[in-house]
Amino acid sequence: MKPSVRKQIGVIGAGICSSETRALAEAVGKEIAKKGAVLLCGGLGGVMEAAARGAKLEGGITLGILPGACREEANPWIDIAILSGMGHARNALIPQSSDALIAVSGEYGTLSEIALGLKMGKPVVLLESRWKIEGTESAKSPLEAVELAFRLIEDGTKRKLRRGIETNEV
Amino acid sequence: MKPSVRKQIGVIGAGICSSETRALAEAVGKEIAKKGAVLLCGGLGGVMEAAARGAKLEGGITLGILPGACREEANPWIDIAILSGMGHARNALIPQSSDALIAVSGEYGTLSEIALGLKMGKPVVLLESRWKIEGTESAKSPLEAVELAFRLIEDGTKRKLRRGIETNEV
Amino acid sequence: MKPSVRKQIGVIGAGICSSETRALAEAVGKEIAKKGAVLLCGGLGGVMEAAARGAKLEGGITLGILPGACREEANPWIDIAILSGMGHARNALIPQSSDALIAVSGEYGTLSEIALGLKMGKPVVLLESRWKIEGTESAKSPLEAVELAFRLIEDGTKRKLRRGIETNEV
Amino acid sequence: MKPSVRKQIGVIGAGICSSETRALAEAVGKEIAKKGAVLLCGGLGGVMEAAARGAKLEGGITLGILPGACREEANPWIDIAILSGMGHARNALIPQSSDALIAVSGEYGTLSEIALGLKMGKPVVLLESRWKIEGTESAKSPLEAVELAFRLIEDGTKRKLRRGIETNEV
Repeated sequence: MKPSVRKQIGVIGAGICSSETRALAEAVGKEIAKKGAVLLCGGLGGVMEAAARGAKLEGGITLGILPGACREEANPWIDIAILSGMGHARNALIPQSSDALIAVSGEYGTLSEIALGLKMGKPVVLLESRWKIEGTESAKSPLEAVELAFRLIEDGTKRKLRRGIETNEV
Repeated sequence: MKPSVRKQIGVIGAGICSSETRALAEAVGKEIAKKGAVLLCGGLGGVMEAAARGAKLEGGITLGILPGACREEANPWIDIAILSGMGHARNALIPQSSDALIAVSGEYGTLSEIALGLKMGKPVVLLESRWKIEGTESAKSPLEAVELAFRLIEDGTKRKLRRGIETNEV
Repeated sequence: MKPSVRKQIGVIGAGICSSETRALAEAVGKEIAKKGAVLLCGGLGGVMEAAARGAKLEGGITLGILPGACREEANPWIDIAILSGMGHARNALIPQSSDALIAVSGEYGTLSEIALGLKMGKPVVLLESRWKIEGTESAKSPLEAVELAFRLIEDGTKRKLRRGIETNEV
Repeated sequence: MKPSVRKQIGVIGAGICSSETRALAEAVGKEIAKKGAVLLCGGLGGVMEAAARGAKLEGGITLGILPGACREEANPWIDIAILSGMGHARNALIPQSSDALIAVSGEYGTLSEIALGLKMGKPVVLLESRWKIEGTESAKSPLEAVELAFRLIEDGTKRKLRRGIETNEV
């Protein structure tokens, strides 16, 4: 009954995008749900909607952190809506709440979330990115992106554990 | 497969409280889960933990919006953790994201959330409150608090619909 | 040339108010400027505008922390505008950035700032308040409110210093 | 007595940097003060401290928007400190409150502010940047950076005015 802590994976990308990008985002959402993780996103259209749709089609759980204050702005595939009412400052909440980020293409808003994720020390995987940013990893397919994200989370946990053992914290 | 929009009920109260207050909060959490709503809270101890525990014991979904940036600070009954990293400013996120608020006892932090909820036009139900604040409703039991919250949400929706009909917006 | 650290006093109150309340707020703003402190407020109309006007008439410095993202929303007496774009969450920024708060009358938004100020351990002085909240102090005039605020700041500083001396931190 | 609206220029960059970068930032701060604009920054060390120092040496006004909640964390050249207590989410406040941004070198935090500034439609000038990002402008010296920032602000204002005239809004 106690919740086992599910991984939370943030999918970030633009609110308006091509159908090819939508297809990639939906496939990313599906893989995240298949792995039993919660999908976090910005709750709006484009990449956010496609990823949430993918996750729901596989029976996953989706959470949208919206910039505005209206439930009606959430796309129809969002289970739980956080209405931040905070505008652009909400861009800090998705990286902060995610164990790893997957960026599918993306514009300036996405770039700000990538940068914040890196600053917070989160794994960041790029799919079809127009930017090259040191510290991120690139994937060639939705499946590779999700597997890479999970591997990087695990590596980070092991690193922390090892450090704990060496310093007698564990 | 598409998510039906579940109600989101915020339970607010202090991080340290008496066992009587904990029992009330747990009962509130149970009633919220029985009605199929998502329980939102601040994710920490005291009232937040008791309410989340109640909801999980009834198979509900729980979401914690934490002031800090560490998953480990969430109580063990939180399914999904929003790590706001925003300190006290996170107090605006719970009222904004809730269809109604139920305050169980509470200190200054709770008072700020009650006030913000009222400012946002949300129904606010008080249980065992030390404050009397116009615009809030009082309940005598956890069951009454939850039923009152749902009734007030419904009244608000009807009022909006009626206004829409009168003004030809619907 | 190095800035001496000026006190920062937050004046909070509603965006729409009576002319009597405006007069009180303007007098509060004047006293703050006379004491060489910076006036912080929400940057909009009503109490915020009157207090900022008072401070400017005495040659003081005024700072408005606005909920929106447009400079044009600031009242004409604001020297520096912080455009938070954060909506109601900006209500945490004024108490956090103030050495003391003075509430002039006020509605729910003001109540949320009073509560957050108390939670943060800041001195809170009420003038013409409709609420009685333990932990706050009441004043009978603008001059008394400002003098009380400064005295409470000084007492807090002394208390911290004394604690530091006792625990050898200073 | 009424405040003339001063331009607000945000200077962004890392909290730890080389002495060459510090020298550039200080020169940027000086030019901003000479032009009578308010300098906005993150209030901490490195680029933020050097820029604020430069502005104060020329008699300017400096404002720091800090991630934390302690006045003591501000560098000694900050006149007014906004204690956001919001952690990384404060990175949205500097671009939002600035008429233009000047980035001096910088790390991931700076990149997030550049991206948010571009998303908000603000002019962004880069000095000694390791990133090439479309939509930004590059400068070769502190003086050129500040002059470019002011020119871009003016161009934006003219563009808005012209649009207003064409659409009869003015």
